[in-house]
Order: sequence, then C-alpha cells, then structure tokens
Amino acid sequence: MTKFASDNVTPACPEVVEAIIEANAGSAASYGDDAWSLKLRGNLSDVFETDVLVFPAVTGTAANALALSALTPPYGKIYCHELSHINTDECGAPELFTGGAKLIPMPGDNGKLTAGKLAATVYGRGNVHHAQPATVSIAQSCETGAVYRPDEIAALSATAREHGLKLHMDGARFTNALVTLGASPAEVTWKSGVDVLTFGGTKNGCFAAEAIVFFDPQTANTFEFLHKRSGQLLSKARFVSAQLNAYISNDVWYRNARHANAMAKRLSDALAALPGIELAYPTEANEVFVRLPSHIVDKVQGDGFEINEEELDGTAARFVTAWNTEIGDVDSLLASFSKHCN
Amino acid sequence: MTKFASDNVTPACPEVVEAIIEANAGSAASYGDDAWSLKLRGNLSDVFETDVLVFPAVTGTAANALALSALTPPYGKIYCHELSHINTDECGAPELFTGGAKLIPMPGDNGKLTAGKLAATVYGRGNVHHAQPATVSIAQSCETGAVYRPDEIAALSATAREHGLKLHMDGARFTNALVTLGASPAEVTWKSGVDVLTFGGTKNGCFAAEAIVFFDPQTANTFEFLHKRSGQLLSKARFVSAQLNAYISNDVWYRNARHANAMAKRLSDALAALPGIELAYPTEANEVFVRLPSHIVDKVQGDGFEINEEELDGTAARFVTAWNTEIGDVDSLLASFSKHCN
Amino acid sequence: MTKFASDNVTPACPEVVEAIIEANAGSAASYGDDAWSLKLRGNLSDVFETDVLVFPAVTGTAANALALSALTPPYGKIYCHELSHINTDECGAPELFTGGAKLIPMPGDNGKLTAGKLAATVYGRGNVHHAQPATVSIAQSCETGAVYRPDEIAALSATAREHGLKLHMDGARFTNALVTLGASPAEVTWKSGVDVLTFGGTKNGCFAAEAIVFFDPQTANTFEFLHKRSGQLLSKARFVSAQLNAYISNDVWYRNARHANAMAKRLSDALAALPGIELAYPTEANEVFVRLPSHIVDKVQGDGFEINEEELDGTAARFVTAWNTEIGDVDSLLASFSKHCN
Amino acid sequence: MTKFASDNVTPACPEVVEAIIEANAGSAASYGDDAWSLKLRGNLSDVFETDVLVFPAVTGTAANALALSALTPPYGKIYCHELSHINTDECGAPELFTGGAKLIPMPGDNGKLTAGKLAATVYGRGNVHHAQPATVSIAQSCETGAVYRPDEIAALSATAREHGLKLHMDGARFTNALVTLGASPAEVTWKSGVDVLTFGGTKNGCFAAEAIVFFDPQTANTFEFLHKRSGQLLSKARFVSAQLNAYISNDVWYRNARHANAMAKRLSDALAALPGIELAYPTEANEVFVRLPSHIVDKVQGDGFEINEEELDGTAARFVTAWNTEIGDVDSLLASFSKHCN
Repeated sequence: MTKFASDNVTPACPEVVEAIIEANAGSAASYGDDAWSLKLRGNLSDVFETDVLVFPAVTGTAANALALSALTPPYGKIYCHELSHINTDECGAPELFTGGAKLIPMPGDNGKLTAGKLAATVYGRGNVHHAQPATVSIAQSCETGAVYRPDEIAALSATAREHGLKLHMDGARFTNALVTLGASPAEVTWKSGVDVLTFGGTKNGCFAAEAIVFFDPQTANTFEFLHKRSGQLLSKARFVSAQLNAYISNDVWYRNARHANAMAKRLSDALAALPGIELAYPTEANEVFVRLPSHIVDKVQGDGFEINEEELDGTAARFVTAWNTEIGDVDSLLASFSKHCN
Repeated sequence: MTKFASDNVTPACPEVVEAIIEANAGSAASYGDDAWSLKLRGNLSDVFETDVLVFPAVTGTAANALALSALTPPYGKIYCHELSHINTDECGAPELFTGGAKLIPMPGDNGKLTAGKLAATVYGRGNVHHAQPATVSIAQSCETGAVYRPDEIAALSATAREHGLKLHMDGARFTNALVTLGASPAEVTWKSGVDVLTFGGTKNGCFAAEAIVFFDPQTANTFEFLHKRSGQLLSKARFVSAQLNAYISNDVWYRNARHANAMAKRLSDALAALPGIELAYPTEANEVFVRLPSHIVDKVQGDGFEINEEELDGTAARFVTAWNTEIGDVDSLLASFSKHCN
Repeated sequence: MTKFASDNVTPACPEVVEAIIEANAGSAASYGDDAWSLKLRGNLSDVFETDVLVFPAVTGTAANALALSALTPPYGKIYCHELSHINTDECGAPELFTGGAKLIPMPGDNGKLTAGKLAATVYGRGNVHHAQPATVSIAQSCETGAVYRPDEIAALSATAREHGLKLHMDGARFTNALVTLGASPAEVTWKSGVDVLTFGGTKNGCFAAEAIVFFDPQTANTFEFLHKRSGQLLSKARFVSAQLNAYISNDVWYRNARHANAMAKRLSDALAALPGIELAYPTEANEVFVRLPSHIVDKVQGDGFEINEEELDGTAARFVTAWNTEIGDVDSLLASFSKHCN
Repeated sequence: MTKFASDNVTPACPEVVEAIIEANAGSAASYGDDAWSLKLRGNLSDVFETDVLVFPAVTGTAANALALSALTPPYGKIYCHELSHINTDECGAPELFTGGAKLIPMPGDNGKLTAGKLAATVYGRGNVHHAQPATVSIAQSCETGAVYRPDEIAALSATAREHGLKLHMDGARFTNALVTLGASPAEVTWKSGVDVLTFGGTKNGCFAAEAIVFFDPQTANTFEFLHKRSGQLLSKARFVSAQLNAYISNDVWYRNARHANAMAKRLSDALAALPGIELAYPTEANEVFVRLPSHIVDKVQGDGFEINEEELDGTAARFVTAWNTEIGDVDSLLASFSKHCN
C-alpha cells in the first residue's frame, strides 16, 4: 500500500477521534434524535449561511446515490462527466437508488463539465420516447483534481435551470476545493445554484462520515423515507454526527485540507519540473496526475514506491495527498523521481 | 429517553472503543484490503467452525436487505413473521435491494415461524402467475424476545429445502440468543440449515457493525457487486472490521449478552410476579414485553420512567436491556411498578 | 380446455373484429396520434361523464401495475385483498412497476375489503421506519365474483382519504359489475371516490385491450413516461384504441356482460339447488365458485368436463361465463352435475 | 402525417389480418397454451434451423428491455451504439426491466459498433467498483438503415465472448436486413454468435407482434417469470402468435421486406443523384437518411410533403419505406425534390 494511493487510506484525525469517544459517554436516543445529530443541522446551517436540511451517511457512494435519488425520477437523465465517480466507480449505485435513472456521461477538459457542452447535450424534454432530463452532477474537486470556480458553477446552474434540471455537487473532496478557491461554502454551493451537496468528511479526517445537504428543504420533501430505505439511517446516529460536528469545528476541516493541498502542490511542482514528466491535469486540490515514461515507473517502483496507472483514464499515474501526509514522504518520493529522471 | 427504550441507545463497550483507536494508527489499504478486514473472515470462520464469507455493513437494515438480495430473485417471495423487522421496520429496504421481491408475512406464536405453517403457506413454484417461493427469513432472537431452538430451526430448514427455499437469519440480537440456548454459533446457524446470517454487533456493544455471513460461498457468488452497489462497502473498512474483531474476541460479545439477558430476566421475573401485570411473550433474551393496566402506566410514568406501548404489536410495553444496563436502574423501575401495583 | 375455465379463453366479439379491420385501412400516425386514439379519450370521458385521461395497455397485469405506479412511491404500501389478482397472480409486476412498493394483503368476506378493516390496518404515516401508506386497490367485480356496491366504495374511499391514501380499482371485469349494480360508470368510480381505474376490455369481448383511466388529471402528471418506459405504448396504438372505441359503443360492452352474468346466474342457481353443492361466494357477476364433494368432481370430469379446484383459494371450483357462453353448454354441464348429485 | 414518417404508420398486411380472424374462431386456452402459440416455437425453430425458445411481446421496447434483462444483472453494463433505440428511444425501459443496468453508449461509423471499438471500451471485470461488463446490443438493420454483415457480427461476438459478454440483437427491422444480406436467419444470428434476438414483426406487416428468441435455452432459464412480471404475457396470447405464424409463412415477411427495401433503394438512388443532396448513411435496408439544404426542405414541404429532421442525429432527414409503400408516392416525392433541386 503506497501512502499516496488515496486519501481514504488515512486514519481519522485526533479531533474526530476525540469526538467519537466523547459521544460514547452513556446512552442516547437513537435514529438521529440524539444531541449530536440535532446540533449537526444548526452547525451546517451556520457553515453554509442558510438553513439546510442534513442527512448523514457513511459512504460517498451511498451519499451520492441518495442525493441523486432525491432529484431524479426513475425515467430521468443525470448529466455527468465521463470520468465522474458516480459514472465509473459506484457499481451502479445511482441506478439502484434512483430506480433506473440513466447517466449521460459527457467529455470535458480536465474532468469538468461546461455550460456550453451541457446545453448542447440536453434534449428531449417532454418527448415520451426519451428518458427525461433531470439532474446535472459535478464533483468538487473533481476526479482529476481540478476545481470548479464559482462562476463556472453558476454558468452550469443557469443552463441547468433553463432546461429544468437540478444541480448536484459531489463534495467528497469539498474542503480541498474550498481551500483552493478561498471562497465560502455558501459561494461554492447554493449561491452558485447547487441544490444538493454530498458533503464529504471521510477523505479529510473522519472515520466514515458524509452528509447529504439540501439547500432547498422542498427538495427533501420525502427524502427521509429514501434515506431510511437505503440502509443509511444509523441507529446510533450520534457517532456519525459527532464526527461531522468535530470536523467542521475549530478549523479542523480547513486545516486538514490546507495541509493536503500544500503537499500536493509541493509534489506537483517538483514533478512537473523534472524532464520527461508532464502533468496530466492541473493540480488544484490534493490529487496529482502525471504522465510518466514507463522506464521511470519501473525504477521508482524499484525504490519501493507503488505507482498505480490504472486509476481514472488509464494513462496517468495518480498521487493523492491527505491531512496526514508527511513532508518527508513527499520528499522521498521526489528524490526517487529526481534520481531516475535526471 | 428511557434507558430501556432499546439496545441501540447504548454506547460502544470499552474493548470496541479500544479497537477503533488501535486501528486508527497510520494509513491502511482501503475497501477491505486492510489487515483488520482480512483477519475478520478467519476470525468468524473460527467462531462458526466452518469457512465463511463475510461482508461488513453498518446498519441492520442494510445487512438484512443485502442478505435477502443474495437469496431472492426480483420476482421472488420471502416468507417472514408478520412482526419481523424486515416486514415492519425497514421502510421497504428489502424490496429496494432485491429489486422488488414480495414479503409474505405470516402469523406465528411468540413471533416465531413454524415449519408446519411454512409448509401450508408455500405454493406456486413454477407457476408463472405467482411470485416465486425463494427465501425464509427468521430473526434470532426474534422481535418478541423469543428464541428459536436449534431443532425448530432445523425443522424450518428442512421444510424450506423441500420447497427449494433458502434460509436467512436476522441476527441483530444473535448473541443474546446464543447465551440463552447455550448452543454454539455453528449449531444455531449452518448446522441447523441457515444459509446466510446477518450477524449483529451494534446492539450488543459496537458503534455500528454488522456482518453478512455466508455459510455457502456459492451463494455469495456475485454478492460483492451487490454489496458495493448498495453503498455498504466502506472505504475505511478497517473501522468496521476492527469493531467486529474486538467484539468476538475474549468473550466480549458473550459477556455483554449475558449481562443484558440477566438484567432482562431480573426485570421480567419481578414484573410477572406483580398483580395486574402479565408477560406478553416469554422473556428469552434481552427484551421484556408486558401488558399493563393503563393506570399503572400513568403512575410509573409519573415517577419519571418512559413507557412505550406503540412498539411491536401496539398492546404491550417493551423494555430492552443491554450490555450496559445498571442493576440499580432495573431495581428503580421495579420499585416504581411495585409501589403502584400493590 | 373447458369452456368455463376463464373469460380469457374467449374470442373477440364481432364488433371488435370489425373495428380492427376498419382501423387497418391505410397508414396512420403512430404512438397514439392516430384518429382512433384521439377519439378514445373523448369517448371514455362521455362514458364516465367527466374529463378523463386515458392510457391504453394490452394486459391487465401491466395496466394494474402501471396504475399503481402512478399512485404509490417506491417506499409505499398498497392495501389489497389477500385474494386479489395484484397480490397473487401478477408475479410481482406491481413491485416492478412501482420500484418496490409493498403490498399489504388483508382478509375480508367474499373477497372484499371493508372500510373498517382498512382503518384498523393502516398505521405508521410519517414514521420513517415504516413503508408509507399510499394506496388502496380493490377489484370490481372482485376475484370471488362479488361486487362492491357504490356505498361500500364510498366508505372505503372516505377512509382512504382520511389516511391520505389514493383509491385504485382493478376493473378487469368492470362491466360485469356495472350490469349487476345497475349503476352508471361514474357512480361506481369517481363519484364513489375512485382515483384511477384499470378499465378492462379483454375478458369481455376484446382481443387485448385495457385502459388506465385517470379521473384526476393531476395524478397522471408524469404518467406518460411511466407508460412508455413500461413497454405499453404501442407504435400502432390505433389497434388497441379501435378495440376500445368499438367496445364502449352501441351497448356492446353491456350486452356482452349482461349475457355473461345471465349465464353465470343460470349456472349458479341450478348448482346451488343441487344436494351436496354449496356456493363458496355469492354469484354477483360472471364467476361461480362452488364447493363440491370429490366424488362428484370425479364423475363430472368423467363426463368430459374439466374442473379446476386450484383457482383462488384452493377449496372451491371456479366456473367463468363470458360474452360467448352458449346456453347449451351451461345446460350440458348442469345435466352432468344433476345426474351425479341426485 | 407523411407516408414516409416511419414503418410503424403502416397497417397490417392481408395475411396477418386473415390470421387474426382465423384465430378468433371460438375459445382457446389462455397464456400461451393455445395451438397457435404452441406452433410458434416449432415454426421459428424451423426458420432458424435450431431449437429456439420463444416469448412473444407486443412492443419492441418491451421485447428489447426483456431480452436485455435476461442477459444482464442489475449491476451490469450493456454496450450499445449511441444512436441505438435502446439508448435513445425507450425512455429508460432497459433500466427498468434490468433493475438498473447501465447502458454504455459508443460511437461508430454508420450507426454500427465494431469489434475493435468494443474491445477498447470494455474494462473492469471483477473490479467491485465498476458496473460489470455483461451484454453487447446491436440492431439489425441498425438505426441508420445500415446492415451488419455476418462477419462483422461474428467479430463482435468473438470479442464479446473474450470479455464474457452476451450478444443481443434488436431485430425490429430484422427481415429488411435479411433481404439485403441474402443470408439465412441462422447465419445472421446464432451462427454469428447472437445469443438472443428481438424478432420484430410490427414494422413489417403485423399489428403488434414481436418475439424474444433465445438460441440457448439455458439463457432463458427463469425468463418466463421476467416475462410475466413485465406485463407482456397476454391472456389471449394466440392473437400475437397467430400474427407471427402468418408473418413467417409463405414468404410473407420476405415479400414485405423486399418491397420496402426496393422502394428505399429507388428513393435513395434518385435523391443521391440530385445536386445539393447527400446521403447521410448508406441505404442498406428500408431507411433513407439525407442531408438537405434548408431551402429545399421548405420548398418540398410547400408541395405538401412532411420532412422530419429531428430524427436520429438531428442533422439528416429520414424517409422510411414499408411493405405498403406505393411506387407512385415515392415518385411524387422524388418529383418534388427534382423540381426544387434542379
């Protein structure tokens, strides 16, 4: 297991561990009626500067699929990037949870959708022969490590609204994008037209904690039944809520993401400067994708570093940094590359 | 929140907390390739004295629905007790995960199915007009707190096999039943003909840890895809596996269940001896169901104890004990009842 | 094949055959934009004395399942009689089309639900643990051949509304019930609170023609997509619409049903008068259910008549009459019974 | 309605009308136990020179979706052309009937998939994160009117088998392809590796008659339940079977398709010879796609001909000929084009 394989190889950060232990003191009401869960909604409403509805979940796959099921009828279409996690890495969960919606994979530079491409792809509303346009889903940061700027999201949202589509954001690495953008959570989401956010904690310091955040309570109308039916309503819900409360308190989430992004930048800048190596995508969050000569791959692996070229598009190697990435590990990896590239 | 509302109001026990903290040291492979997850299969194979396949899950609802989806085609029938959790308390999760299977709720004394009733209910195999008989699902201990003896399970299993049905056991309170029966995990499951067990840890000392245990690997053929697709494959799987490993080690699970059952017996025996109170079901695990005169309910509630009569069949009050139930709390409750009944 | 096996062993009646031939002259727009389909809505609106929305289908199973899918969310409950066709004879079609709704089978005298029993069965609205009460489905005439009177329907409907439920009527044998009741189509449906009717033509003189009739256009909001997605939107829709137009014109449907019912009454009255034979259910439409001594069954079968005791509840023999039943065939059957019973 | 809008605007041909009338004489067993349905399997086995299993259906959408559901698990991938009917014109029916399978739309010259492109697209077998490769679906003739040669099908099939995929053929216009190829039904299907065929009759002379044809009975193992559950098992199945029996007898299907193809060739050849008009796809069956200057479109429409440019890829006008296309109508259309193009 390489330390750069993914941000999901990481442990939970100390504050989240503390929160779990603290929440474990004695009995508490189940199924979300506990103090931690009741506080979570207020806390996230503060973070997003608007009254949100929140439903915790324990995997990003479930959280994404559930969010999509709130926005998409079974005969609906979900527009997404062809490299998106919902399209390639969830083994059909969106199809299961929506009751058979159809994902429409689209190309797009650096893993990002554009309003223009979206407008050119949507068709068939009201025509009974066609699955119906329903939802656009983007990831922030997206699968290539690139980040959507608020104006890009707003443009997508405007096009979506013109075509009667809702906008979902897969925020498995949401905080990494926030750090890069220097924008507020509100600016990156509902102020730019996002309807529902999958708010990820797992990759950035939690054990297993995601939240489906609704910016329009109306959209979440009957969602509690979809949530329960999917097996994501924990009886001991306090232990997920407690993670999230700690995660969004005291700068923990930002601190973790800042460190991860800084480590990615350090790695990316140095790799890009080496002869024979080129970045496959711009490094804008905590993922670095590089195209490598195969003899370099072999030699670096010979030094004991694992390199996975199967990720994403099959042509670039991915290195992911995280809240706990040690600068020494970055520099050791760079030393190996440097030795073999020069 | 009354302390006897459910065993899911409990915290995790110390050994499980320790295990989470221990598993949190450093990075580890994701999606079940970590050391804890890899050990879990061996550990549970030891416990069950046979080579089992194991898939962790974080809610009982998901674990039950997933187990049923491995055994039941979308046009299949699942025979279950009318009071069963899968029938009444999972908001349609079994229907979602199976793609539309039909639950056939059956009556039965004390919440238990019988082989005779099952034989009389199954019909229609091979007749294209009828949803097809596929699966029998029983809970151990069941929703009334009653326990199936191995010979009862074996009889159900024999009838099931005669009719080409698979047998699922919902073991949300499996250990409580083991303690009562004094039988081995193997005797209560595969040796009595159970094909798949939902092995519950959450109610008996874990944070959120269940496992779907297959006694016949063939049945789990393509299950890994159903598991992933349902959103129950955690990226940081080690944190569920670590809970389960600690739970089944060093007598922790038995110790917890023995205490819960002893507290239930203490409560049950004393309540049953009071004038005007009768047990609704035999107390065989960690749940006590009693029928109470309404003036008694009012008075005991007046003493600050919460009594929930809406549970299960709407006519009996349920008291659930757990690994952390304090004898003083049992005796305070009994003192209140005693004062008002005499 | 006995002539009394079912009303689906019958040919189409002459007017329907004529209509198909007439509709076959030349090309016509597809998918329901043809003249026959466009007229159908008006014709059925006349018949029902209100503006209805109509979607043709070719099987009763599809029509029922589609109608239910318009009324029931995937986490919903459908209350129905335990003997109902949707519960026992559609191999899970309602579950497929609704995305996993749960049928709640209920007992009831003569195959009919009652408002009282319905009220006593519904629970759990708004409680996230329970599949949600959504729909009541009754058959008219029902599976026993009994008929709901308008006041019985109105009582069910009132209870349904109190509990936020919609009311579906499976009218596979709708006209047989109309004839018995001497009530108008409107009185038996929307005036008694029916929201959606499966209007059957196949059993009473058509080749294969059913219609899903919405009395509240709002309920059919997005139904056109469910209809197309289910494979029930015929490209040459005119051939189903033409059948239905002919069927409801010039008294054809009433004439056919009157004859069927009269033949059933003749058979029922004579059988009931024989020693050793008793009616299992009152004969109110075109189905006769009798309980027969087994030696009588053997002897009558010895005379060349087929008797099927497996139908419905497994204890009564069913004889179904139809628009084309010949009085001579009724009398031959009766002669055989008479000979062996006396 | 233009006469060239589609081959589904056509009436049934005389032999099919006769067959319906003939089958309407008296009562017959229901649900496929009638003489016509029982003969259909033998007849189609003769046609395909192998023992086939046959399940009738009444729409191509249902037949395709059902066929795919026999080959594809709910977590499976179906590889198809991006212009294919299953991908664009069935409002999500394949997703419904398969329980959520994922269509993977692929580009390809003239609407056809190639073995090479397929091989380059398939990935992820056994990797739990990815929906699993399951099925390839091609249309014969395909949506552009082009036809797969047997060697092209065999190459696709070989690649499919290498990757563990089954091969489905959507034969809505199967006979038009047969006529073009001069190959036997067997050569174009199972001898080239097709596992399941949707055999279409509706567009080429039937009222509404399709058949799902299994060349490997093993694949159809539990299909009868999927068939019934989908609402495609007609009670009066004889009326679909009778159409198909007549259709494949006495050269009817070939005669109809030969005429349709000849009319398409006449139209295509003459249009292609006109200045300013170019064929969008080669005319190989009964569909003609041309790219037209917009002023020509206006003028021809001014002469009373309807031209639909929205079909298929939005840039070409489609003209479809059929069994009943009159040569005079072709020549009138050509005269209008000729007048305005020269």
